[in-house]
Amino acid sequence: MNDYTTVNANEVITKWPFSEAALGIKANVIREILKISSQPGIINFAGGLPASELFPQTHLNEVSQVVFEKHGAKALQYSLTQGIIELREVLAERISTPDNRYTPDIIQITTGSQQALDLIGRAFINRGDYILTEAPTYLGALGAFNYYGAKYCTVPMDEEGMIVDLAEEQINKYKPRFIYMVPTFQNPSGITMSMKRREALVELARKYQIPIIDDNPYGELRYSGEQVPSLKAMGGNAVISLGTFSKIISPGVRIGWVAACPEVSAMIEKVKQGTDLHSATFTQYLVYEYINAGYLDPHIELIKKAYRKRRDVMLNSMANEFPECVKFTRPEGGLFLWITLPEGVSAANVFDKAIEAGVALVPGKTFYPHEDNDQNFRVNFCHPSEDNIKEGIKRLASVLNKVC
Amino acid sequence: MNDYTTVNANEVITKWPFSEAALGIKANVIREILKISSQPGIINFAGGLPASELFPQTHLNEVSQVVFEKHGAKALQYSLTQGIIELREVLAERISTPDNRYTPDIIQITTGSQQALDLIGRAFINRGDYILTEAPTYLGALGAFNYYGAKYCTVPMDEEGMIVDLAEEQINKYKPRFIYMVPTFQNPSGITMSMKRREALVELARKYQIPIIDDNPYGELRYSGEQVPSLKAMGGNAVISLGTFSKIISPGVRIGWVAACPEVSAMIEKVKQGTDLHSATFTQYLVYEYINAGYLDPHIELIKKAYRKRRDVMLNSMANEFPECVKFTRPEGGLFLWITLPEGVSAANVFDKAIEAGVALVPGKTFYPHEDNDQNFRVNFCHPSEDNIKEGIKRLASVLNKVC
Repeated sequence: MNDYTTVNANEVITKWPFSEAALGIKANVIREILKISSQPGIINFAGGLPASELFPQTHLNEVSQVVFEKHGAKALQYSLTQGIIELREVLAERISTPDNRYTPDIIQITTGSQQALDLIGRAFINRGDYILTEAPTYLGALGAFNYYGAKYCTVPMDEEGMIVDLAEEQINKYKPRFIYMVPTFQNPSGITMSMKRREALVELARKYQIPIIDDNPYGELRYSGEQVPSLKAMGGNAVISLGTFSKIISPGVRIGWVAACPEVSAMIEKVKQGTDLHSATFTQYLVYEYINAGYLDPHIELIKKAYRKRRDVMLNSMANEFPECVKFTRPEGGLFLWITLPEGVSAANVFDKAIEAGVALVPGKTFYPHEDNDQNFRVNFCHPSEDNIKEGIKRLASVLNKVC
Repeated sequence: MNDYTTVNANEVITKWPFSEAALGIKANVIREILKISSQPGIINFAGGLPASELFPQTHLNEVSQVVFEKHGAKALQYSLTQGIIELREVLAERISTPDNRYTPDIIQITTGSQQALDLIGRAFINRGDYILTEAPTYLGALGAFNYYGAKYCTVPMDEEGMIVDLAEEQINKYKPRFIYMVPTFQNPSGITMSMKRREALVELARKYQIPIIDDNPYGELRYSGEQVPSLKAMGGNAVISLGTFSKIISPGVRIGWVAACPEVSAMIEKVKQGTDLHSATFTQYLVYEYINAGYLDPHIELIKKAYRKRRDVMLNSMANEFPECVKFTRPEGGLFLWITLPEGVSAANVFDKAIEAGVALVPGKTFYPHEDNDQNFRVNFCHPSEDNIKEGIKRLASVLNKVC
């Protein structure tokens, strides 16, 4: 025994001096839901995961060797906070349109889209500031912005996305810091904002000089319907767009990006530096060489084909098995669709019964900043197999047919 | 041309509504210094980089294929915020001592040590809170804590590290939120805290119930002298320790960790989730399989041998070439040593002359929370080759011999 063991190593500081912001973080509801969902025998429509069996393992293994051979120590060393230039060049090219050409200096690489949301919060939010969002909206954004003490003013959605006509009143009343949107194949609703609404929103942002955050993780995953331009393509420098390779290559590489104007990009770089210096150099090169080998676009076609099929299987199963009074969206892309229960039927109740019946989904409440919803569910149609989709919808229908 | 190009894409929001915290971030001095240091012809002692040519490229390439073959899709999918269990098990075992056994639940994987510093700031600091640090201290910690509005009370160091006798007055006066330390082979000074001082500091932390942050990125890189136990090993749950693979495997994988008590680990996990969901799954498995293959400990021996040699070459060159009045530390490990100029000689002046002479180092000012220093330099003796060390010290000595 050493002298220093006179200090009791198991002693705990009586009251850990946690910050008020940290103590204010609410328990993560979805974590509990995912814990329940992963019990054996449960068909899981709850998670936000892409399909594991579609990851391009063989090609990524191949290009990982290219990374070592071609970039060597450079891929293992510290690198720029902005991200490696090779990847930023490719991204600037990919998001450029004939009308808007982008250069690598407006791209900031992030540790997945989630870090982009955190850095946006860090760069823009003072405690008590309002953010204007769609209702429902992406829960990961709420998780990121909540730490910074954000409050929310919300605008409801219909089948064309946010009802922009209702946004101006909110803007005048709450003076939001920015507008946060998932306008394309929205998480959680699956809804895509119409061209007309996009135009109206960009006009509104210009009129009030409020930046729009265009969170666009699913934009490349369109299965049907007509392409609409991204908000970024329409609004130019008034729009800060977020992208990620999580849904089109792999979430485990944790590579996303922010595309903004030089002034905002420089600020995002500045606030990122203190948080992690930079995202993993190695996985940045991995993604770059994967794209460089020409693998990305064919891979996107491959997963689109599989996801389109799963979506159709789910939509058909729902149409055949659900009672008429239960509504659901018919997304043109992305990972999720949205169930609306008839008035008077509680999603919390249905959730418990669904778990008993062996199927998990996420109650809508989680996606509302003010949690004022007990009528909806988010359903992931990309992660489960076609057989599990059929069986899971059968189980869910048996519950719905009893309560509706 | 589409209709939507009626919006001027190059228009910028007149006044970007950045947050006060973001606007308060100071320009990064070291970035400017590193830009100067990387000019052709300059021998660079300024950076914080480990030696690129010593990265275990061949073994990492080998185990990257093991990751694909053994873990497949799991290494590419979303994973737990805490980090993969395999790596947390290995780390818990590595930091356990006969007296203190640790379990994987007290380990939180982070995106390098820098993210651990950010998460500590996030979990503990309210704007205006004081942090007690050594003076000088690690500039990356200042960068992380500054965003959260930290103020600093500082305690000077001598050759035994922080002069703990002077700390109690600071604690009484400023009621610091926590004590932040790099007690072993400190960045920037290279100094290691003595056993006696460690005991005194732990006692003080217990008396005032203030947690100690033991930032320990270099602990495994001892080249001479006698091993001292880590503050974590001495202080148990009163100490939150930070570690990283950046200096012993590769910084580009961005894998570090926090080891704390369950209560603090749970809070760090909670505050991390909103920032990036989790660190890269792929590089976590890469590091895990590298250790699992038995490569880590022999590799540490290999780099220790090379770094010891470089340290000795630098110390000998300095002893031979520097004027007597210029003092420097003789670190027993780590990456850095610390030059002290004679009174009246300005480090800012010497820096400019050193750049002219073709050698770069970091002025001490950057490492002082209150920037009240113009007498010191940090020197990296691990990144440059032995030849460059000799030549760089010759150049520096020519400057010093003129001004001292």
